[in-house]
Amino acid sequence: MAQLQAEIIGVGTELLLGQIANTNAQWISEVLANQGISVYHHQVVGDNHDRIYRSFELAKSRSDVVLVTGGLGPTDDDLTREVLSDFTKRELHQDEKALEQLETFFKRRNRTMSENNRKQANVIEGATMIRNDAGTAPGMIVIDDETTFIIMPGVPTEMKKMMEDTVLPYLRETFQLQDVIVSKMLRFIGIGESQLEMEVKYLIEQQSNPTIAPLASDGEVALRLTARARTIEEANHLIEVSEASLLARVGQYMYGFNNETIADVVVKQLVKKDLTLAAAESLTGGRFSDAIVSIPGAGQVFKGSIISYSNETKTQLLGVKEATLSSFGAVSKETAIEMAKQAKDKLRTDLAVSFTGVAGPEPLEGHEAGTVFICLYYDEAHYRVERFSFVNHRELTRTRAVKKALEWLYYFLESN
Amino acid sequence: MAQLQAEIIGVGTELLLGQIANTNAQWISEVLANQGISVYHHQVVGDNHDRIYRSFELAKSRSDVVLVTGGLGPTDDDLTREVLSDFTKRELHQDEKALEQLETFFKRRNRTMSENNRKQANVIEGATMIRNDAGTAPGMIVIDDETTFIIMPGVPTEMKKMMEDTVLPYLRETFQLQDVIVSKMLRFIGIGESQLEMEVKYLIEQQSNPTIAPLASDGEVALRLTARARTIEEANHLIEVSEASLLARVGQYMYGFNNETIADVVVKQLVKKDLTLAAAESLTGGRFSDAIVSIPGAGQVFKGSIISYSNETKTQLLGVKEATLSSFGAVSKETAIEMAKQAKDKLRTDLAVSFTGVAGPEPLEGHEAGTVFICLYYDEAHYRVERFSFVNHRELTRTRAVKKALEWLYYFLESN
Repeated sequence: MAQLQAEIIGVGTELLLGQIANTNAQWISEVLANQGISVYHHQVVGDNHDRIYRSFELAKSRSDVVLVTGGLGPTDDDLTREVLSDFTKRELHQDEKALEQLETFFKRRNRTMSENNRKQANVIEGATMIRNDAGTAPGMIVIDDETTFIIMPGVPTEMKKMMEDTVLPYLRETFQLQDVIVSKMLRFIGIGESQLEMEVKYLIEQQSNPTIAPLASDGEVALRLTARARTIEEANHLIEVSEASLLARVGQYMYGFNNETIADVVVKQLVKKDLTLAAAESLTGGRFSDAIVSIPGAGQVFKGSIISYSNETKTQLLGVKEATLSSFGAVSKETAIEMAKQAKDKLRTDLAVSFTGVAGPEPLEGHEAGTVFICLYYDEAHYRVERFSFVNHRELTRTRAVKKALEWLYYFLESN
Repeated sequence: MAQLQAEIIGVGTELLLGQIANTNAQWISEVLANQGISVYHHQVVGDNHDRIYRSFELAKSRSDVVLVTGGLGPTDDDLTREVLSDFTKRELHQDEKALEQLETFFKRRNRTMSENNRKQANVIEGATMIRNDAGTAPGMIVIDDETTFIIMPGVPTEMKKMMEDTVLPYLRETFQLQDVIVSKMLRFIGIGESQLEMEVKYLIEQQSNPTIAPLASDGEVALRLTARARTIEEANHLIEVSEASLLARVGQYMYGFNNETIADVVVKQLVKKDLTLAAAESLTGGRFSDAIVSIPGAGQVFKGSIISYSNETKTQLLGVKEATLSSFGAVSKETAIEMAKQAKDKLRTDLAVSFTGVAGPEPLEGHEAGTVFICLYYDEAHYRVERFSFVNHRELTRTRAVKKALEWLYYFLESN
């Protein structure tokens, strides 16, 4: 058959008021793209009978599959079910099984089912029901002439579960989808977006399967490879070949794949090398430790941290010398080194990281906001300390500092 | 005149592939709603001449103002300018002033202007240009019979600047918009979403100006009041009246307004009462301290924290007794109290907060993942300690624990 054309309709006045973004359309589009289904249109309409009706008309005139999200709730505003019934000229009737599921849902949560909720058990004649395991409103698949309408709730968790459990298997089987799409993300650190693009520009431009898309966020860059083929094996093979060419150019900056974060990789390396870590955080105020502790298994290698957000804490608790603070200032190379050394000693670890700087908005000790000293300390002979000038933006500076320390740790652990 | 009807079209295959969400449509919708302009439709189409053309046709048939984002870039994929020229049957010609601005843009950044970029200086006959101070492609306002088309780049920063500097003033003047919309957010803590809704349900249902919308996220709830009136004063007055009725019911749970966070309010209270704070974090691993340090001015009141992510750190650095750990376990009321007391003593503060628990995914010391003990310590006679059972989700449990401690601090500071 010709390539399947899909369309996504978001129903809900909250979308037209800008209270929420239509992330459902994004998510569904991505999932359909991965199945080789082309999405040519998105529409958004409010909770209005006529406008929903006309959006269905338009969609039917141009699309094979129409996925509708929203408007299945219990209130009078929720019209999707009723409009589709009018549009397809098929009656709504209360489905016993759907009502039973609804009653069970409320009973399990010790909540009373209101009269309103009963309407969520209304089903269009001839429709295939889509179970909703995460909420109250079931979805429906309704075939109207050449067009398949699929209606689902607007709550993202409910919609996603329905898509994965029911809708995608249904589409794959009904339309005998044969192509598969496989994506792989390569993650880089220590190289800027423009430099990365420059290094691999000819590869990005030269080829279309897999496509290579650069992505950037918060001081990290990634390349997404997306291949389309008849089998997963074939798609994986296409990706492998491209990956090899890419890594020949920029492999030294790659730290991980897919959803791996630099903190994941650092914790894994520490576990593998049986090394323990501590931190002394002033500027970052716990953000570095938080990033490490976010990783399950961090407890094996991370012993803790001293957050010294006052000079008094730096001297009395962390043990930085008064003389260091008075001669060089709290925001200095010397203080950063002592902080890391003391954290390592006090927490008895193999490695320690320290941060001191000016989060802003005001300058401090003559340093501009955004000035940061980071130290990674192993022993007297092996430590690294540097001064950075990040931007005058409190949150960004603290996030960048944490990323930079993770980058250093990554390279240290790779090469030792 | 009748109420102005606007429509938003997003152009770009990346939207249909789900690579990005159509946040431009959300932002524009919200901004237009604030001007009293109704948005009835969003459309998204790919970089395809015919489909863009038909989306213009459809929009012209039903809307007074059509705002288009995307497709103004320098590549061959970028078609919005060309399609609008075809659709309105007006020629494109190179505009000298636009070309000059383009050249200046590249010169300032020491970049070479490619031949492709020259097409960005093409302007539709009779169009009003919209300066782009943040990028290369200017926007355009083109009146086609009864419909005003406004085309802008898809890059959010460029589009937003154009909207604020040029498009909104243009719309206000051209369509003599008179109503203003004012929104105010009331923020609550310590009350669940359903309880809050129940308490103020009749107020929400009774009135339409201002509208009252409940919003929930991460253990906090808010009510958004949105009033529409001829003047800002009148809108503010409508909001004040509603606010008073709301606060008569649920005022004891309200902590702040608009973008204020609970951490903001706690830091302000500490400053005002001249009290200092420390923390001892195990489970939360720095997340509480990070939340406090995120607030400018935190340095005045927050001295620091000890992150004791191992038992060894708890005893040797923080000073929790070995006997406490061995008799009651690290995850216990007794350990939580000692952690907070020791943090207060070691960091010499007025108040201290401690966290110990099981982040998961595995149980620990016989406690389910999600079990957390929190202690807020002032002195022997004034402390509060409680056990919580959050969900078995590492990040959620840690975030909820931090929110709960901020809630306790807020109430403590309010009443002392």
